Amino acid sequence: MSYRAPVKDMLFVMKELADIESIAALPGFEDASLDTAQAVLEEAARFNGEVVAPLNFEGDKNPSFWKNGEVTTTPGFKEAFRQFGEGGWQGVLHPLEYDGQGLPKLIATPCIEMLNAANLSFALCPLLTDGAIEALLTAGTEEQKQLYVPKLISGEWTGTMNLTEPQAGSDLALVRTRAEPQGDGSFKVFGTKIFITYGEHDMAKNIVHLVLARTPGAPDGVKGISLFLVPKFLTDKDGTLGARNDVHCVSIEHKLGIKASPTAVLQFGDRGGAIGHLIGEENRGLEYMFIMMNAARFAVGLQGVAVSERAYQKAAAFAKDRVQSRPVDGSAKQPVSIIHHPDVRRMLLSMRALTEASRALAYVAAAHCDFAHHHPDEAARASHQAIYEFLVPIVKGWSTELSIDVASLGVQVHGGMGFIEETGAAQYYRDARILTIYEGTTAIQANDLIGRKTVRDGGATAQAIFAQIDQTIAQMAERDGQAFKSMHRHLSAGTLALARVVEFMVAKVKSDPNAVFAGSVPYLKLAGIVLGGWQMARALLVATKKRSEDEAFYGAKIATAQFFAEHILSQAPGIEASIVSGNGQEGYLALSEDQF
Amino acid sequence: MSYRAPVKDMLFVMKELADIESIAALPGFEDASLDTAQAVLEEAARFNGEVVAPLNFEGDKNPSFWKNGEVTTTPGFKEAFRQFGEGGWQGVLHPLEYDGQGLPKLIATPCIEMLNAANLSFALCPLLTDGAIEALLTAGTEEQKQLYVPKLISGEWTGTMNLTEPQAGSDLALVRTRAEPQGDGSFKVFGTKIFITYGEHDMAKNIVHLVLARTPGAPDGVKGISLFLVPKFLTDKDGTLGARNDVHCVSIEHKLGIKASPTAVLQFGDRGGAIGHLIGEENRGLEYMFIMMNAARFAVGLQGVAVSERAYQKAAAFAKDRVQSRPVDGSAKQPVSIIHHPDVRRMLLSMRALTEASRALAYVAAAHCDFAHHHPDEAARASHQAIYEFLVPIVKGWSTELSIDVASLGVQVHGGMGFIEETGAAQYYRDARILTIYEGTTAIQANDLIGRKTVRDGGATAQAIFAQIDQTIAQMAERDGQAFKSMHRHLSAGTLALARVVEFMVAKVKSDPNAVFAGSVPYLKLAGIVLGGWQMARALLVATKKRSEDEAFYGAKIATAQFFAEHILSQAPGIEASIVSGNGQEGYLALSEDQF
Repeated sequence: MSYRAPVKDMLFVMKELADIESIAALPGFEDASLDTAQAVLEEAARFNGEVVAPLNFEGDKNPSFWKNGEVTTTPGFKEAFRQFGEGGWQGVLHPLEYDGQGLPKLIATPCIEMLNAANLSFALCPLLTDGAIEALLTAGTEEQKQLYVPKLISGEWTGTMNLTEPQAGSDLALVRTRAEPQGDGSFKVFGTKIFITYGEHDMAKNIVHLVLARTPGAPDGVKGISLFLVPKFLTDKDGTLGARNDVHCVSIEHKLGIKASPTAVLQFGDRGGAIGHLIGEENRGLEYMFIMMNAARFAVGLQGVAVSERAYQKAAAFAKDRVQSRPVDGSAKQPVSIIHHPDVRRMLLSMRALTEASRALAYVAAAHCDFAHHHPDEAARASHQAIYEFLVPIVKGWSTELSIDVASLGVQVHGGMGFIEETGAAQYYRDARILTIYEGTTAIQANDLIGRKTVRDGGATAQAIFAQIDQTIAQMAERDGQAFKSMHRHLSAGTLALARVVEFMVAKVKSDPNAVFAGSVPYLKLAGIVLGGWQMARALLVATKKRSEDEAFYGAKIATAQFFAEHILSQAPGIEASIVSGNGQEGYLALSEDQF
Repeated sequence: MSYRAPVKDMLFVMKELADIESIAALPGFEDASLDTAQAVLEEAARFNGEVVAPLNFEGDKNPSFWKNGEVTTTPGFKEAFRQFGEGGWQGVLHPLEYDGQGLPKLIATPCIEMLNAANLSFALCPLLTDGAIEALLTAGTEEQKQLYVPKLISGEWTGTMNLTEPQAGSDLALVRTRAEPQGDGSFKVFGTKIFITYGEHDMAKNIVHLVLARTPGAPDGVKGISLFLVPKFLTDKDGTLGARNDVHCVSIEHKLGIKASPTAVLQFGDRGGAIGHLIGEENRGLEYMFIMMNAARFAVGLQGVAVSERAYQKAAAFAKDRVQSRPVDGSAKQPVSIIHHPDVRRMLLSMRALTEASRALAYVAAAHCDFAHHHPDEAARASHQAIYEFLVPIVKGWSTELSIDVASLGVQVHGGMGFIEETGAAQYYRDARILTIYEGTTAIQANDLIGRKTVRDGGATAQAIFAQIDQTIAQMAERDGQAFKSMHRHLSAGTLALARVVEFMVAKVKSDPNAVFAGSVPYLKLAGIVLGGWQMARALLVATKKRSEDEAFYGAKIATAQFFAEHILSQAPGIEASIVSGNGQEGYLALSEDQF
């Protein structure tokens, strides 16, 4: 059940692919050297490995439970969360002035990956709190920031996001919760919110709910939604806790996975009205929510990387230990450990290649975010921001979709033992299944990728990325060996396929939106494969150059990159075919409801 | 939670693709007309829909449980199993002389699919009993057949297969259970067997365990394994139950899915020895076991089809009901049911296309089995048998692998509700996960496909199948329309890809077995996609011809075939690339254990 953070792999990506040394040269990040990063990662690895990871299986066996409106979390969670807060882990990327550490997102990112690999259920509380902090920093008054953010960073209080209602899953236009002004600047909030992660729990003294609601007379649809802060306990201006607010947890869900994370139904205002405070301006709630959602979506992408890594570690350990059957090449007369069987290797390399590629893409995206905020040049900031925003739906959608496959392969490597809950591999398969759904389903990520990120600028951001990929392809053309040969072939083909798909999207989005959006998720997956493959190609170039320094490490990187090219990038042209051909009005899009 | 058997789709496949009318013309199958088939299917649909399906969710909530060596099954299972036996459903394909119905496998196949779609956990008891019946019919004495088979067919008794031991999962060479002759023709059996499906339960008066064990002095490895029958209760020659035998259930497993199906650890001989009877000749146990395994593997393939169908029905019903978001093409100002969103359609069509293709391939395989046993011409029998045996690992491996993807898509269509256990979609995702593992993992199916089914005859059977596919391709070349255009393009490319892979396998299996077997599972999937796609192409030809007779039905068949071509067959060339390039000794196959 153990987890050992892959610090060496993470530092490789940060240094060689995400260029941490350039980030450390940005104004405000003078302390963010590779040495600092290494020290932070090693301490995070220790804390998550020793304190958080052992509670993961426990949380699955003894989930958080509800009784009389209160939620008791898994034994050990409360104490671990205390240590998490005291260690400063909630504040890694938040500003120094609110008691954060002010480090780059690129350094926070591996810390978040580790926390999630150690314990997906536990990590959700900090993940949602991060979102609340982001929203307050963006739209809160200085007074609100001073009151709430330091307490959220210290772990005394935690935060939630309240979007979904029973009739409104992904469609926020349908939100009905209402907020009535009280004349004193405060509001009374009434409504029901569902699927609220850590909406109620016993790990902190107070819970700060950020709630989407409508004020009287607000416009219909998404343009009439405002953002409110509704604390579980009312507070005075210095944060002293007062009366219990009228927000109550009426039940929690019985879920497929992440069972230790309480998913609450919250009732606002059943006893006279829940006191709430407007955050930012009225009717701009969706805009603020998108800011916290972008951060949360990126973090959920990391959850995909994290559960993939954990599943890989478990499967690799089992494959080294389990002795079954003689080798197919006749090289031994006795049964060998199953890691020697070619198909087990294929499964392990599939898991590892996908994990490494999705990690590299996420970390590179984090670096773009840092450049976007700290680069001295405005045009450079804008260009990094555009690339970051292009990458967020891919990191969220692709990393999570593949994490389901990776966790499933992890079960398969275990054979019959994988299906037995005591083994633990099945938990990752169950836990991973939520990741493509919450914080926006894969289809919603894919629609974002098409609508806001690809066609709005006529494909310009995508083209800028392709130009960079072409440079990598050119560097590979001159190299020898099967790894370069395969990578050159499949990255070239994949990039051409992706470029043609972008052209198709831009050309057809107005004239045939159904055909374009029918290809949305395949487009997102294709983009993930090609951009992830590009990072593997960059890793291949570095690993080849440094191979003699550390044969075991760089040799494995080369083999993994080659595997990615031959087994994963090779799928790209097939995906292109599924997007651009025949999705029009004469095929399945024209079927009537009754034909399903 | 309801299940409605797709009788019309099943009859379409039986008539148009599996040629039931030719089977009804075979000696011994004079009663197996399409009308008979329709009557049997309609009655099976009623029984499974009304009696068995409602117990599926119940079995997940209230799994079978163990106490003091006894297993109590889910409430309702015992009564449903009584009705199953009384209805004659266990005997559909077994011989008339032992109280079976003697119908073709092609008619039994949809019945088995329905039972499994209704309730995978419940269906496992008959599935294992079928295996025991097959083994007895193959290797038992006439006395043994008379004593056991009618009682297994009536449902008074049930059967099990005891292969796995704690140290021997897939590797039967490691079996240690021993059988000592008692001098009176009987044996005493000692050992521990694990993962024994329905190894103990309360649905029948007796359980007939078929057990692999070694006699004293038997050769090492798989050549020293014999097959024994060990009843739970000893019986006299007319089947009257006597003393309890020394085989005891010491625990059952806590599993990810199929929770109502008790998976037993059985202890043989702890109280002096379990009385067992040799079945067939000593040391030929593995051979007999393969006979029952071939039948069981085919049936597990049907389980894949079944859970896919069930997941599809549930997702389609939800998608028609759930209202969320306005259409992307602006065709409505209000939110619409999600079945109108292109990506939901893509998911539903993926589910449906894979389900229909895997069903068609399985039914066509069943027909080959019928021809192999009943065709008057010996050469025709041999050729059908070779094709059937080629198809069994594909039906088992491909139908089950895809069922995991289909069940996962089913969860995704439900969004957040899919992750809540009360919804029921998650159960299929959990249940399906065992199918690629038991009765031989996908890798074991793939090794069988390469070793016994492809390279042993130098690729001859594969070539014979390709020649048939080429005829279908030629028929399509002359037709108009996007569906034919896409199918022609992708089936041609897919078949060429598959043919090149077969060539690679045959050429390299001796010189580079690791490279060949590293491609085993991709080869199996490629074969599934191409052979499944071939059936969809054949369906497309029929549906186009008959379209005017029933526009809704045949129009949907055409759209589904086109979808299969564009979204699934289009993957074939990419899979070929992953098999034939670079799997040799310089890539990941050469990594040391420590590099994982």
